[in-house]
Amino acid sequence: MEVDYKNIKVIGFDADDTLWVNETYFREAEEAVGKLLSQYETPNKIDQELYKMEIKNLPTYGYGIKGFVLSIVELAVELSNGKVSNDVILEILNIGKDMINKPIELLDGVDEVLKTLSKDYKLIVATKGDLLDQERKLEKSGLLKYFHHIEILSEKQDANYSKLLKHLDIEPEAFLMVGNSLKSDVLPLVNIGAQAIHIPFHTTWAHEKVTKKEANGSNYKTVQRLTEILDFFN
Amino acid sequence: MEVDYKNIKVIGFDADDTLWVNETYFREAEEAVGKLLSQYETPNKIDQELYKMEIKNLPTYGYGIKGFVLSIVELAVELSNGKVSNDVILEILNIGKDMINKPIELLDGVDEVLKTLSKDYKLIVATKGDLLDQERKLEKSGLLKYFHHIEILSEKQDANYSKLLKHLDIEPEAFLMVGNSLKSDVLPLVNIGAQAIHIPFHTTWAHEKVTKKEANGSNYKTVQRLTEILDFFN
Repeated sequence: MEVDYKNIKVIGFDADDTLWVNETYFREAEEAVGKLLSQYETPNKIDQELYKMEIKNLPTYGYGIKGFVLSIVELAVELSNGKVSNDVILEILNIGKDMINKPIELLDGVDEVLKTLSKDYKLIVATKGDLLDQERKLEKSGLLKYFHHIEILSEKQDANYSKLLKHLDIEPEAFLMVGNSLKSDVLPLVNIGAQAIHIPFHTTWAHEKVTKKEANGSNYKTVQRLTEILDFFN
Repeated sequence: MEVDYKNIKVIGFDADDTLWVNETYFREAEEAVGKLLSQYETPNKIDQELYKMEIKNLPTYGYGIKGFVLSIVELAVELSNGKVSNDVILEILNIGKDMINKPIELLDGVDEVLKTLSKDYKLIVATKGDLLDQERKLEKSGLLKYFHHIEILSEKQDANYSKLLKHLDIEPEAFLMVGNSLKSDVLPLVNIGAQAIHIPFHTTWAHEKVTKKEANGSNYKTVQRLTEILDFFN
């Protein structure tokens, strides 16, 4: 499917797993939780129950590490039938603190791509998650200099993007979004008449997955590496 | 001290304890924690240690209920020397969920004041705290219709306000901020050459308190009730 970017004036980037590693740390934390609670259940069951707990608590806690940690504590009490030790509770809290304080690991080619595109386009970040966390990661990333605007959203649905574009005074036709999540970074943009490029990350949180049917026929590009998007802008 | 509002074009409002009750719920939660942990320490000591724990964790967790709850869990383990029961841990998690799901209780005159001022001024919200929490509270408040812009900040220091005003293309002289915290809603504005009105709330988190010396000589007004600010705009 041919896509034309000649009307694009502003390019939005997702942050977690598009500019830097993030989901990997959640997978590592889940693995650590599986070990911490291994006396009560199999790793597979713990994984499944943790996901259920996160989804149950998502309307209350929202996205981000703090809600994730609170869900793990609740799960530990539940899976252990109220017998989990205080040591394990502290370990869980520390897993969360370690996640929050992780250094930023930029994905390949990020600096080059942003540097190049920032010469001809206004670049923005549109990311979901915890406000303080995301601000801190952007700060640590050294990438702030490339961006005209940072938007941290509590959700990334059609209406959230429409509001953002209106706020920034951008027509949908002039906006291209780049990100790793079909559900959050690609399909809502296609729905509102903007463009999108999908760059899959090697691991995706179950909650962000979409069926083939949902994605089918939508008008967006897929690339395997961020640097490939430069080919579209010659 | 006479203050002149004839240059004001935009009025910013803090949200928690300026538009609606908030700090009261933290005080109630602290009281509940005092009771939950009463077998280990006096309420006074628990209060003091909780404050220390919150301040220790503030750089990691930031403001908001989720970080508050994580700090209480950590405190419970620490104060009990690792002996706190799983039931108490669950109770702590539930205190947090209840706080997040509290209905919004508007302070006196809020609707009237916003309705009146929104006819002649652009109104914005500038609030600190958890993104999802604050968005949800604004939604529930029914006040969104009065505001041109909502800004949720991770900190409210001079530089945060300067950036916000720049982003909104407002000169400091044209901006007036209204809020209950001298530290967060008043003094930073005075510092950057904007105006501010202080409306004390009956309870203030220790972290938001300023000394008389810090506030002394600064050019701002203080009123006891939000409705009084209408008198300045005749």
